[in-house]
Amino acid sequence: MAGNTFGHLFRISTFGESHGEAIGVIVDGCPAGLPIDLEFIQSELDKRRPGQSKITTQRKESDTVQILSGIFEGQSTGTPIALLIPNEDHRSKDYEHNKTVYRPSHADYTYDAKYGIRDHRGGGRSSARETAARVAAGAIAKLLLQHYGIGIFAHVSAVGTINAPNLAALPIAELLAQREENIVRCADPATANEMIEFIDSVRKDGDTVGGKISCIIHNCPPGLGEPVFDKLHADLGKAMLSINAVHGFEYGSGFSGSEMRGSAHNDIFLTDGAIPKTLTNFSGGIQGGISNGMEINFTVAFKPVATIMHNQQTVNAAGEAAEIKGKGRHDPCVVPRAVVIVEAMAALVLADQLLRNKSSRL
Amino acid sequence: MAGNTFGHLFRISTFGESHGEAIGVIVDGCPAGLPIDLEFIQSELDKRRPGQSKITTQRKESDTVQILSGIFEGQSTGTPIALLIPNEDHRSKDYEHNKTVYRPSHADYTYDAKYGIRDHRGGGRSSARETAARVAAGAIAKLLLQHYGIGIFAHVSAVGTINAPNLAALPIAELLAQREENIVRCADPATANEMIEFIDSVRKDGDTVGGKISCIIHNCPPGLGEPVFDKLHADLGKAMLSINAVHGFEYGSGFSGSEMRGSAHNDIFLTDGAIPKTLTNFSGGIQGGISNGMEINFTVAFKPVATIMHNQQTVNAAGEAAEIKGKGRHDPCVVPRAVVIVEAMAALVLADQLLRNKSSRL
Amino acid sequence: MAGNTFGHLFRISTFGESHGEAIGVIVDGCPAGLPIDLEFIQSELDKRRPGQSKITTQRKESDTVQILSGIFEGQSTGTPIALLIPNEDHRSKDYEHNKTVYRPSHADYTYDAKYGIRDHRGGGRSSARETAARVAAGAIAKLLLQHYGIGIFAHVSAVGTINAPNLAALPIAELLAQREENIVRCADPATANEMIEFIDSVRKDGDTVGGKISCIIHNCPPGLGEPVFDKLHADLGKAMLSINAVHGFEYGSGFSGSEMRGSAHNDIFLTDGAIPKTLTNFSGGIQGGISNGMEINFTVAFKPVATIMHNQQTVNAAGEAAEIKGKGRHDPCVVPRAVVIVEAMAALVLADQLLRNKSSRL
Amino acid sequence: MAGNTFGHLFRISTFGESHGEAIGVIVDGCPAGLPIDLEFIQSELDKRRPGQSKITTQRKESDTVQILSGIFEGQSTGTPIALLIPNEDHRSKDYEHNKTVYRPSHADYTYDAKYGIRDHRGGGRSSARETAARVAAGAIAKLLLQHYGIGIFAHVSAVGTINAPNLAALPIAELLAQREENIVRCADPATANEMIEFIDSVRKDGDTVGGKISCIIHNCPPGLGEPVFDKLHADLGKAMLSINAVHGFEYGSGFSGSEMRGSAHNDIFLTDGAIPKTLTNFSGGIQGGISNGMEINFTVAFKPVATIMHNQQTVNAAGEAAEIKGKGRHDPCVVPRAVVIVEAMAALVLADQLLRNKSSRL
Repeated sequence: MAGNTFGHLFRISTFGESHGEAIGVIVDGCPAGLPIDLEFIQSELDKRRPGQSKITTQRKESDTVQILSGIFEGQSTGTPIALLIPNEDHRSKDYEHNKTVYRPSHADYTYDAKYGIRDHRGGGRSSARETAARVAAGAIAKLLLQHYGIGIFAHVSAVGTINAPNLAALPIAELLAQREENIVRCADPATANEMIEFIDSVRKDGDTVGGKISCIIHNCPPGLGEPVFDKLHADLGKAMLSINAVHGFEYGSGFSGSEMRGSAHNDIFLTDGAIPKTLTNFSGGIQGGISNGMEINFTVAFKPVATIMHNQQTVNAAGEAAEIKGKGRHDPCVVPRAVVIVEAMAALVLADQLLRNKSSRL
Repeated sequence: MAGNTFGHLFRISTFGESHGEAIGVIVDGCPAGLPIDLEFIQSELDKRRPGQSKITTQRKESDTVQILSGIFEGQSTGTPIALLIPNEDHRSKDYEHNKTVYRPSHADYTYDAKYGIRDHRGGGRSSARETAARVAAGAIAKLLLQHYGIGIFAHVSAVGTINAPNLAALPIAELLAQREENIVRCADPATANEMIEFIDSVRKDGDTVGGKISCIIHNCPPGLGEPVFDKLHADLGKAMLSINAVHGFEYGSGFSGSEMRGSAHNDIFLTDGAIPKTLTNFSGGIQGGISNGMEINFTVAFKPVATIMHNQQTVNAAGEAAEIKGKGRHDPCVVPRAVVIVEAMAALVLADQLLRNKSSRL
Repeated sequence: MAGNTFGHLFRISTFGESHGEAIGVIVDGCPAGLPIDLEFIQSELDKRRPGQSKITTQRKESDTVQILSGIFEGQSTGTPIALLIPNEDHRSKDYEHNKTVYRPSHADYTYDAKYGIRDHRGGGRSSARETAARVAAGAIAKLLLQHYGIGIFAHVSAVGTINAPNLAALPIAELLAQREENIVRCADPATANEMIEFIDSVRKDGDTVGGKISCIIHNCPPGLGEPVFDKLHADLGKAMLSINAVHGFEYGSGFSGSEMRGSAHNDIFLTDGAIPKTLTNFSGGIQGGISNGMEINFTVAFKPVATIMHNQQTVNAAGEAAEIKGKGRHDPCVVPRAVVIVEAMAALVLADQLLRNKSSRL
Repeated sequence: MAGNTFGHLFRISTFGESHGEAIGVIVDGCPAGLPIDLEFIQSELDKRRPGQSKITTQRKESDTVQILSGIFEGQSTGTPIALLIPNEDHRSKDYEHNKTVYRPSHADYTYDAKYGIRDHRGGGRSSARETAARVAAGAIAKLLLQHYGIGIFAHVSAVGTINAPNLAALPIAELLAQREENIVRCADPATANEMIEFIDSVRKDGDTVGGKISCIIHNCPPGLGEPVFDKLHADLGKAMLSINAVHGFEYGSGFSGSEMRGSAHNDIFLTDGAIPKTLTNFSGGIQGGISNGMEINFTVAFKPVATIMHNQQTVNAAGEAAEIKGKGRHDPCVVPRAVVIVEAMAALVLADQLLRNKSSRL
C-alpha cells in the first residue's frame, strides 16, 4: 500500500519525479465556494523555488503552476483540484555517472531495495522536488484557513549552532515582514545575517549544514484534533517528519519539557475571556491532542543535505567499492527554502482537522 | 471524522474510558496462521499495569485480558481479533469534585470545547488507561514481527536531567535483562538507581517529572516505509506523538543532527555483506523514509504528568476561578510504565509497514 | 488488508464468529450529544433474533446487547461506542462432522483457500450471525438519522415468485404497522399470508427459498452522496451486497429501466416547493449519485439459504468425495430476519454520507 | 469528505470536468517492475472514445493519453503513475442556454443543492467524460492482472428489450473477436445487428434507450475478497454502480436466484482438480465474498441517457418553469462505449483485491 496521499477530509495526492515530465497534486475535499487566487499559489511556490538566492541550489525552475480542474469562475467547486508544475531544467545526464552507485545518506539504496528498480535521475521520487506539489496544495489549504481567520507563520530558528532568540513577544505581522527581508528567512535580522554568512562559508567549503524551523499557528479555535491517534500534534509531527531531511519534531515544551517538574510545567488557566487563556503555554496550544485556543508552536529539525561537493567512497548495486564525485547543483542548507514547506504541511493538517471537527457534535 | 484507528493493513481500533465498563481493541489484518500466546499478551500488559512498584500509581487493576474472537485452536484465523480488558478499580467519586472544573494541562477543557460534553471520571477517554489496549494489540504485532525475526527494545534513557549513557555497543539480550532488573526500566543499572531515587523524592514532594524513552528496532529488513508521506520515521513519529504526554520525537541524529555538517553526517557505505552496512548510523536505519537494514533508533520525550498533589488555581466551565485539590492516585513519572507502550506502538508501525511492503513490487 | 470496517465518518468495525465468545462492534464517529436509547437498540436486535417464529431458525439466542463505552449519562460523548453481544447457544458439536468437509454454496472452501485455516463451527466469521453487530450499530445510526428527521422503511417484497404489490401510495406509518403484524414482515397482509404458507411448506420439504427486500428512505435532504465513486447509490449497493446471501441490487427504475427510452424515463421537475419535486421517480431519489430530496428506493435480491435438510454430495479438504448430512438449525428463508439488516446498513450509509456532506461547501 | 478515490492498495484518484483543461488520474500502488504498454492504454481509450461510430455521440476527442510520472524505462517504478488526457472539443457555448436551468434526470439540480455552485458546461464533473480517466487507469490494472493470468471480458448483453443469448459455452477468445466485429460490442453477431438497427431508429427519433452489459472474469484464483464488508462482489457492485447511468447490479444467479430453492441453487462440488470445480455456478464464482476459482460473472443495468433531442419542460434555479431545448451531441445508447468502462472498473477491483490478499496469511 503506497503512501502518496495525505489527509482525510482535506486530502492531497502528489505525483512526479525530479526529472520526469512534471510534478503535481490533486487536492480533494476542498469545500465549494472558496475563492482561489492563482497568484497567491504562485507566490508560495516562488518561496520554495530553486535559484532564488546565492544560498540555494542554482537549478533553474520557474515552477509555474497550472490549474487543470476544480475551479470555476475563480471559485472551488467541491470537485478535485488538480495542479500541475512542469519540470524544465532537468539535466539528467548530470546523474548518468551515479546510475548504479548508491550515494551516501541518500535514498538510492533503499529505493532499490524496496522496489527493485530506481529512477536514478536526480533522486527520482525521493527528491525534495516533490515538495513543490505540497506547497501548491498547501497554498489552497492556507486560503481555506484564512477564511476561518487562522494564520500560520514559520521561520528559520537555527542554522547549525546559530540559534535565533525567542521571538514570541513580537506580533506575527512584524515577524513575517522581518522574515521576508532576508534570504535565509529568519525573523531576527541580526541572527539572519550571521546565518547567511555561515551558510555561504559552508557552501564555499563544498559542504552543507543542518538547521531548524519554528512554526506558530495563531487564532486556531479550540477543538481541533481527533483523539486518540489523530491528535493534532501527532498529525503535525507526521506531516513534518514526512518532509525530506527532517529528523526531529517537538511541540510546546518539547524535549526540554522532559526535564521539568509538573508543578512548573502545568499551564494555569486565567479567568478572563470566554475561551480560557493560560498563564504559560508549555502545552504548545494543544491539550489531550486537541487545540485549546492558545498559540500552537512547534519546531522541526533538519539534517544537513547529503549531497556535498566532495568526493566520497561508497558502494554500487553489485556491492563493489565505488566513488561519488562531488558535482551537481544543490543547496548548502535546506531550511531557507523549507520554511514555506513547513507552513504548507501545517496548513494541510489544520485544514483537514478543521473539516473533521465539523462532525464532532450534533 | 474520529481518530481511534491506527494503521492500514495491520490496523487497530481502540475503545473505552478510564472509568467505563472496559477498555479494548480490535486488531484487524493480522495474517492467518500466527500462533497467539495469551500469556505473552498478559505479560506485556503486566509491564504497563498500575501499582507495580512504589514509583507508579497505586490504582489497582489486574488488567486481565480476554480474547473474544479471531483465534481458533491457538492461531489467528485472519478475522478480527477482539481483546477486552475490564475496568475494576474505578473510584469515580474521587473525581466528583472536578466535575465542572478544568484541571491544568489536562484535556478537560479541550474535550469540553470539542464535544460539548465530557466524561469527567478519571479523564474519560483522554486517560492514559486507553494505552492498555494499545499494549495488548502491540503484543500481537510483536508476535508477528518475531515470526520475521524483527525485535524491538526500549528503555528509559532519561528522567528529568538524569541521562543514561549511550548503550549502543551492548547486545540487545543484555540490555533487556538489565532493564528488567530495576523498576524504572533503564538498562544502565547505575543510572537506574539514580533515577529511582530521584523519582521517589519527586513523589514525596507531591510533584511529577518528565523523561525520555529510547527505542531500538533490530533485524529490520531493508524496504519498509512508504514514501512520500508514510515514511517509516513519519509513521513512527506519529505513533509516538499519539501516546499521552509525549512532546517530542527524534530519530537517528535527531535534533543534534541539525547542528552538523553533511561531510560529517553522511553515513558511508561499507562493502561487506549483501545488504550494505554503513560506518556510522546518523540516518537511524532509515533513508528516504525506507529502512536500510541498519538498526533503527529513536527517542521520545515525555512531559511531566499534569496531576500533582498540590492545590492549584484554575477555572470551571462557567469561566469562574476554582481550586483543584491535590488528591487521587497518579504516577510521579510516567516513563517506567510507558516503555512497553513505546514498544507496542513501534511494533504496530512495523507490522503495518511489513504488510504494506508486500505489494511494493511484482 | 482486511475488510471488517464500513463507513468513513460514521464508521463501524465488527468482530466475532458464530460460535466464539461474543460478537460485537465499535461505532466510531457518532457525534457527541446524541441521546442513546438502549431499549431501542435491543428492540432492533429482537427483530433479527433467531427463534422468533416458526419460519426462522430455532437457535436460541437472547442477543442481549451491552454498551461498553462511548455513552455517558445517556448521551454519546464523541468517543468510540463499543457494543457487545455474547454468544449463548453455540452447539459447536453439531458441526464436528463437517470439520474437513466443504458444504456446497457456503464459504467453507473459500475461507480455507484464502486463510489456510478455518473456524468450521457454524461457519465461523462467514456466518450471518455477524449481522447482529451491524443491526446494533445500525440502531445508533437510525437514532442519528431520526435527529435529522430521516426515516428508513424496508419490508419483504418477494418470497420465491410471490411478489407484493407496489405499496408506494401508502404512508410509511401504515406500511410499518402492517409489516409488524405478520411474521414474514411484508407490508401487504394478503401477500404476507401467502408467503408464510409457502415458506412453511418449503421448510417441511427440508428446503429453502430466496426472496427480495425493498427499502424506502424518506425525508432525506438533497445533497447526500459523494461523486464520483462514493455515489449514494453506490454506497447503498455495496452495503447491501455485503449482507450474507445477497446476489443483486437495483435502485429507482433498476433493471427494468434498462428497457426504457429516455423520453419515458426522464423525471420531469415540478415547479411547486423550494426543493423541486419530480412527476415520476425513476431516478429513485438520486441523481448523479446525490440525493435530490425525493424518496429513495431500492430492492435487494437474496439467494436461497445454502443449508438444507437434505443429504448432499460434496468434497473434503483432501479433494475426496464426501457427504453432507442435512441437520442443524437454520432458516428456510432469510428475508424476514434480514429486513432489519437492510435497514441497518441503509442507516449506516446515510449517517456516513450525512456527516461527509458537512464539508461539501464553506 | 469527497469521494474521488477508488481502491485501497491499487488506488486511483481521478480529476477533471467535461469542459475543463483536462481530465486525468493518479494510479497509486501499482507494484514496481510491471511493463507499461502505452499503446495498450491508448487502445483501451479508443474503445470509449466519442465519435467512433454512427451510434455514438459525435463529439470529437482524440483522447490522447500522456504519462507524467511513475514509469522509467518502460516499467512501473512503484511510485504514482499520473495519466493526463487533455480536453479538445469543448463547445461550452452549447451549454450557455442551460446555465441556470436544471435538465431532467441529470445531476444539475443535485450538484447545485450539494455544492451551491455548479460548472454547467457539459455537466462538469458529473459528465461521463470522467470515465476516460477510469479506462486509462483500468488499462494499467489489466496489465497487472495479465501478469497473473487473469482475464476480463464484457459485452453488451441487452439493448432495450433485445437480449443476447447465453454465450457461456463459447471460449473467451472467440467472444472477444466477435464482440470487436460490430459497433454495438455484443458478442453474438445476430443480436448485434438487431441492436444496432434498433439504436439507430431510436437515434432518429431523437430519443435514447437503456441496456445491459455482462462481464466474465476468468482464471481468477481462489481467495480474493475481504469479508465481511469488502466482499469481492460488494466491491464489484460498488464499482459498477459508480459508473454513470448504472441502476442495477447482479452476480451469479442474481435476481432470478431469489426465486429459486436451495436444493436447486446449491453448486455441488466436483472431485477433479486441486481447486474443486462446481457442477453449476449460481454462486457466480464467489462464495462468502471470496473468489472460489470458478468463472466470476455479473450483469450491469444502464438506464437510458437523459439527454434527448426533444424539448422538455423543467425548472430553473429560481424554481420557475423553463424549457430545455433538445440539442447538443450525445449518445442514443451508452452501453457500446461503456463496455470498456465496465471492464476497467472490474480490473481495478480485482487488482486491488489481489494486492490485499497478499497479507491474508503468513
